[in-house]
Amino acid sequence: MEAASKARPASKPRDLAGDKAQRIVDAMRGSVARRGAAGSTFDHVAREAGVSRGLLHYYFGTKERLLVEVVRRDTDIRMAALDESLAGAHTADDLIDALVRSLEDIVEHDPDFVTLWFELFTVSRRNREIGVEVAALTRRTREHVAEVLAGKQREGVLRLHDRPDAVATILFSLADGIAMRMLLEPERDFAPTLRAGITCARALLTDGE
Amino acid sequence: MEAASKARPASKPRDLAGDKAQRIVDAMRGSVARRGAAGSTFDHVAREAGVSRGLLHYYFGTKERLLVEVVRRDTDIRMAALDESLAGAHTADDLIDALVRSLEDIVEHDPDFVTLWFELFTVSRRNREIGVEVAALTRRTREHVAEVLAGKQREGVLRLHDRPDAVATILFSLADGIAMRMLLEPERDFAPTLRAGITCARALLTDGE
Repeated sequence: MEAASKARPASKPRDLAGDKAQRIVDAMRGSVARRGAAGSTFDHVAREAGVSRGLLHYYFGTKERLLVEVVRRDTDIRMAALDESLAGAHTADDLIDALVRSLEDIVEHDPDFVTLWFELFTVSRRNREIGVEVAALTRRTREHVAEVLAGKQREGVLRLHDRPDAVATILFSLADGIAMRMLLEPERDFAPTLRAGITCARALLTDGE
Repeated sequence: MEAASKARPASKPRDLAGDKAQRIVDAMRGSVARRGAAGSTFDHVAREAGVSRGLLHYYFGTKERLLVEVVRRDTDIRMAALDESLAGAHTADDLIDALVRSLEDIVEHDPDFVTLWFELFTVSRRNREIGVEVAALTRRTREHVAEVLAGKQREGVLRLHDRPDAVATILFSLADGIAMRMLLEPERDFAPTLRAGITCARALLTDGE
């Protein structure tokens, strides 16, 4: 890992043409879901993506950096979908509905995204290079949502109770914490929990209206 | 793992005398913090705790069950400390202060507790037996806090905005999400985020007073 980091000092993976990159990302995603990040190797991913181990090494350096890339792509896709539904929000309740639907959609249709994100967090705790990348990804995502919230405030849709970046951080924190609990207890009725989460969101987004 | 599960069908680890159990728990904790759960083995833990590998196998069956036991003990210690500070809370703000201090204390003095908890979550996603144990631990902790909240409501300290278990779930979700972000970005000023989190807690615990 150290040697690989030295050989590939650039902070972002090299560009890789669309189809092959997508196969690699899908293979890593599936492997981490089944085996965990620590249990996944370039050998597994190369075999399952139908590419050479050398190509993975060349483009990503380490499997930890490949994991960052997988989560980054997933996050970008999620953010684009969220942007689209937030664009149509004309009231605070519209916006909160869109957030809740995004959360429910991830838990129901893409639980691996949640698992991958927490895997990446635990990896970042033991690997400083990955920690820096994950912090940058977290910051970028938060700043993006903070800008959307500030824009909605300028449009008169929201009255933020605190700084946009603080509100965005709390919304992400709630989403992470609720998603992990929905996955831990799939039989539990989360309607009251989601309702309580909406109470929080309303307190932050409508300034107690 | 399968074989071990069959050999040890009981759902809780056997009792192990205090000092030795504590050394094992400490060794596993340290090992997971350094190597991750997947990278930690009974060999590492046995060596670092000064016990035999056979003893670990006899008492815990698998390293995943040892990880559950570590998180369970940590959680019990955290809950006992929180109970003590909540007992002295005579207003909603006292109680919220105690929650915030507990969160800050974990992030500052015991970040491995956060990492271990998320490690355990990711393990639970791939291991059904562990998933059941983690769900039970989550439920027990939530029910305990829900009872404390209901008691504080009976005393007139709180006016809960929703069911105690839903409020407890949201408070834990917030704590998890904020803790992971504080660890990811140690240089960021989290005062505004904590303030926004307090806004949420107040909305849930004081019914908009």
